[in-house]
Parts: sequence; C-alpha cells; structure tokens
Amino acid sequence: MPSQTEAVRRLGIDYPIIQGPFGGGISTVGLVSAVSNRGGLGSFGAHIVAPEEIGVLRKEIGAATSAPFALNLWVSDHDPGGLHLSQEEFDRYFPIFEPYFEELGLEKPEPPELYHYRFEEQAEALLEARPPVFSFVFGVPSAKVLAECKQRGIVTAGAATTIAEAEALEAAGVDLIVATGFEAGGHRPSFLAPAEESLFGTLALTQIIERRVKVAVIAAGGIVDGRGVHAALTLGAQAAQIGTAFLACDESGTTDAHRALLHGDAILETALSRSFTGRLARVIPNRLYDELLPRAAELPPFPVQGWFVSRIKAAAVAANRSDLITLYSGQIAPNLKHRNVPDLMDALLQDLS
Amino acid sequence: MPSQTEAVRRLGIDYPIIQGPFGGGISTVGLVSAVSNRGGLGSFGAHIVAPEEIGVLRKEIGAATSAPFALNLWVSDHDPGGLHLSQEEFDRYFPIFEPYFEELGLEKPEPPELYHYRFEEQAEALLEARPPVFSFVFGVPSAKVLAECKQRGIVTAGAATTIAEAEALEAAGVDLIVATGFEAGGHRPSFLAPAEESLFGTLALTQIIERRVKVAVIAAGGIVDGRGVHAALTLGAQAAQIGTAFLACDESGTTDAHRALLHGDAILETALSRSFTGRLARVIPNRLYDELLPRAAELPPFPVQGWFVSRIKAAAVAANRSDLITLYSGQIAPNLKHRNVPDLMDALLQDLS
Repeated sequence: MPSQTEAVRRLGIDYPIIQGPFGGGISTVGLVSAVSNRGGLGSFGAHIVAPEEIGVLRKEIGAATSAPFALNLWVSDHDPGGLHLSQEEFDRYFPIFEPYFEELGLEKPEPPELYHYRFEEQAEALLEARPPVFSFVFGVPSAKVLAECKQRGIVTAGAATTIAEAEALEAAGVDLIVATGFEAGGHRPSFLAPAEESLFGTLALTQIIERRVKVAVIAAGGIVDGRGVHAALTLGAQAAQIGTAFLACDESGTTDAHRALLHGDAILETALSRSFTGRLARVIPNRLYDELLPRAAELPPFPVQGWFVSRIKAAAVAANRSDLITLYSGQIAPNLKHRNVPDLMDALLQDLS
Repeated sequence: MPSQTEAVRRLGIDYPIIQGPFGGGISTVGLVSAVSNRGGLGSFGAHIVAPEEIGVLRKEIGAATSAPFALNLWVSDHDPGGLHLSQEEFDRYFPIFEPYFEELGLEKPEPPELYHYRFEEQAEALLEARPPVFSFVFGVPSAKVLAECKQRGIVTAGAATTIAEAEALEAAGVDLIVATGFEAGGHRPSFLAPAEESLFGTLALTQIIERRVKVAVIAAGGIVDGRGVHAALTLGAQAAQIGTAFLACDESGTTDAHRALLHGDAILETALSRSFTGRLARVIPNRLYDELLPRAAELPPFPVQGWFVSRIKAAAVAANRSDLITLYSGQIAPNLKHRNVPDLMDALLQDLS
C-alpha cells in the first residue's frame, strides 16, 4: 500500500492520517500536537476563535509540536438572516431556549454584537500567523486569501460534499480536497446546494471526486482504523481524515459523558439535524435533539441558533450532562476501540506498516 | 487480496462479484446468465413474478447457465393499507395519476385483485424451483422457509441496512448478509425501522456489520470497478454486490433512454424518494419525481403506488421516454465505464487478478 502519497509529501507529514478538525470548543492543543507529534496531521477547529486570538493559538500549538498541523476555519460565517438580529427578533427566538436556560439556572442573555466571528478577519489573522496548513469548510476563500497562502507557503485543504464543490475548489487552486462523506460526524460542510441535497456516502464520493479532479483527494467519513485507511487509499484517496476516533480520545476537549457514550456498549445510531447550530450536522440523538426536532421551522438561522445552544451547552458541560449538549458522532462510532491518541496512532501505524 | 473468500466458496462462484437483483421488470435472463457464466453471481429480481411463473423462470435461467445464480424476493409484500383497496379508495387515489394516464393515452384501470404477489406463495414456488441461491430484501423469511432452504441446499442471503437488521438475519440463521449502504441504487430494503432512519454509508455499514456478526458480509452500494471490490474486501466484506454498473449494461432490461442517462456526460445526482412505489428508493430525479415530490402526503402506500406508476411506466417505456419512468441509479453512476457484461466482467476480473 503506497502510503507515502503526494499529499503526504505535500503536507510534510509521515503518514496519510489527518485528524478531523472539531469546532465548538472541542479541539485542544493537546490533541492536535499529540497527532502531529506521531506523524499524522493534527487539526484545530478555529472558527470559534477570535481573530486576535488566532496568533496566540498558533504559537501554543507551535510550542507543543514542531511537526505540521492545520488550523481550520468556516468560510461562510452566517446564513441569511443570521448576521444581525434586532432586539425584537432576539426576544422572539428566546422563548424556544428559555426552558433550558431556566433549568440550568441561566439568566436571559444580552444579544451579542456578533453571533460568529467574521471569516475575513479570521483569515487575515490566520495568514499573519502562518500555520503550516490552512484547512477550511463551508466554501472557497477569496482568490486574494488563497494567493496569500501560496506566497506564504501555507498548504490549503478544502472540504467538498459534492462533485460540483470539488470542481469549485480545484478551479480556485486549492491544494487538497477533503471528500467528506455522509458518514462523517459533525457538520456537513456543503456550500453550493443545501446540505440535505448533498449527501454522498464516502465510498462513492471519494471515487467520484478522485476521477473528476486532478487535485489530491483526502477521504473523510466512516474511517476508524487501519483497514479504513487502506480502503480509502485503495479508492484513490491520498490520505484519510479521521474524526470520531480522535474525538473519543482523552486528549479531545469534549466531555467525559460524551466520550462514554461514544465508547458505550449501546448500539449507536446517529442522525442529521439542524437543531444544534442551524446547519446540518451528524449527532447522537439526545433530549435536546428530540425536543428541538418538532420545532425545526421555528429555529433561528446559523449562527444564531448555535449561539443560543452554546450557552445551554456551556452550563450542561459544566455539569457533565449529555442531555443538553451537542453529541457529535460519525456513523462508525460502534467500531471505536482506543481511548487515547498514542494507542490509536499505534494501532493505525501498525496496520499501515 | 484474498478474493477466494468463504462466501465465494459457499456460493460456488469463481469471483467475489454479485450482480445486484433488479425489480420492476429490469432483470433479464440474459443479464443473469451472462454474469454467472463469467464466474460472478447473477441475480434475478423475481418479486414481480407470479408464483406459478417462478419455476418457469428458474428453468429459463438454468438453461442459459450451468453456474450458480440467485432468485430474489421481497419478504414484506405490502405496507399498512396497501394490501386491499375499496373501489372508493381506488377512485380517491386515481386523480393523482390521471393526468399521466391521459397524456399517455391510457384508460382508467380496473382495481386488480392483488397489487403485489404474496411473498409466502412466491417463497413456496421458489423452494419448489430450488435455485442455487435465494436472496431476499425487506425482511427475514419464516423459520419454516429458511429450514426448507437448508434442507434443499439453497444458500440464503438477506439484505441489512442497519446493525439491528444484520443481527436479526444472523439470529434467523441466514447464510450471508448483504450490507446495503446508502449509496446503492433502487430500494432501501429496510425492515425494522423506517428507511429514512436507516441510512448508513457503505463504508461505515460494511465495517460495523462485519464486526458485529459472524455471518459473512457482502458489501453493496457505491461499487463500480475493481478498486471498489478491493476496498470492500479490505473493509472485511467477502464479496461485493454491484448494481448500477450491471443495470447500465445492454443486457439489462431497462430502456435505452435510462442507459443513456446513466452513461451521460451530465453530472448525475441521485435522490431518495417514496414516489415511485411507496417505498424509499434511490433514483435520478426526472419529471415524475419533481411532480410527485410535493404530493408525497397524498400518495398511496406500497405496493399500490407502485402499481399505478407501473402502468404509467409501461406506456412510457414503450415510447422510450425517460420523463415518466423510474430511473433507478446508485450514487456511483458518474464513474460508469462499460456498456456490456463481458467488458465489465473483464475489467473487474483484470483488477482482481
């Protein structure tokens, strides 16, 4: 199995293994550096990091590893109606969330100035910070940003959920395309058509994109162990992106309750929902999922929905509760085996050798 | 790559390649025998064949090939409300279809005695006909039927779309499990939970089922060439079931218009819909799909919906039209290459050698 692919060389890593970036505060410097120090590519989901903090983050990761790593941003930072709310709109949405705020002992919040940082400012800060790899989801950065990456030697990787998205990324000159199959946990990073209409299985998507574009393809979704990595390479991918298996490691920033569910004996079923942030994501259904499902039509757009839920989550996380947090998970969770990065990387590398 | 798997030996075939069974009149003796004669397993979708015709069909296939082949049935033959209709109910549903009947010059039909043959009678006839392999979807046959298969030396293969379905098939003593991923064309053969809640990608489903059950697993969905077969075997499958690539061959019973679309240069997008038979199936959207989509709530249950649409289809097929037929297709269609079974089998076997 030729695991020393062009993409591996380009990324400057030892093995064709990329840790999927996690948003929502569950990426950690410890996780990213643990993966990168073992020869994979660690990734930090920085879309919730303020522009002025991105340089600091980059330095923290750089202090923990001398190996390449990725910072990940969300190109599209809001959906229609999700950029600004009037106080009246804010007050109209709040009753949906009020019972949870009350249950968790939280006051009604003040509307923030921004519900999400602006991508352009984050990208500016990222260019300044010059991480080895800039990976992104939900769109294609401007030609100016991509040209700056090229000039500064930052490798770029964009996520595609359809053929058209892969072709758009290739046309823009992005270095690597992450073919993100339906099985993957977390957000479906679709940007040309609604996510609900952009659902390809990883097996099909990897092969189709690999045949349609010249850019190197990375397969994401449904990969948890060495045989999954082998299968991805067999299908024409040059590396495999692994999310849930790293999320379930002690080094990730999620809660013990979430980790216990991921490793649990109960047969896991995941579902796609817009209830958590306003954008479609794969999660383990819990009480918050069940209760918000019938109210889908009333929920505010991204990122407003995510802003409200993140307040609920913060209090629930503090209480190590799993009923009111977002339980991201890929479909492959039933096959999880390892509880920390060294064990997981050892197993993956043993299979690859 | 160990392509001489236990499942291949059990089936008595030469290569780990199974042609997916097609319902709706698009299976042909020529297709099945062409695949079996080349060392794969041809499969005939016999769920639309009358019990008294199943023995005849079995003899026709047996005359065309001395190699093993499968007859396929649908275990569950109706959904609630789909077994019998009163004349009043029939008349209430007809206006949905009336414009198409008029456009195609068809009279209003008389209600049939049965909208679908009864599975128990078909199974009885199949046992009598004794095909080498009995494959089935949409459920688990009774213990009596399965015991008869064992006694008569008929190998059994059942389709699973979830972990629970695979476990039910294993518990019943079925010989082989076809892990049918989300990418696959045609019907989602779910039987324990709604098909919409039973959507796993092939990459994830194959690995999960393989780890949960002891029975040999066959991967289906998203496989079109030798690298797909290799990937399936890498993931732990003992054979790969290939549907759309055989459907697109001249030997299948579909229309030239459908074949042209499958091979077309236009980027194919498929979608899941209940509009064609009342059960969820993956198709290429066309006019019938677009027009029935907003009327989903008014459509009759399976198999009544399929009965009405099959009348429309028959007239549309006669006119080689693609706007009013069911354009089954898997997600992998953009990667189709071959136009007949010898070319397709040659390419697959070259990759496997």
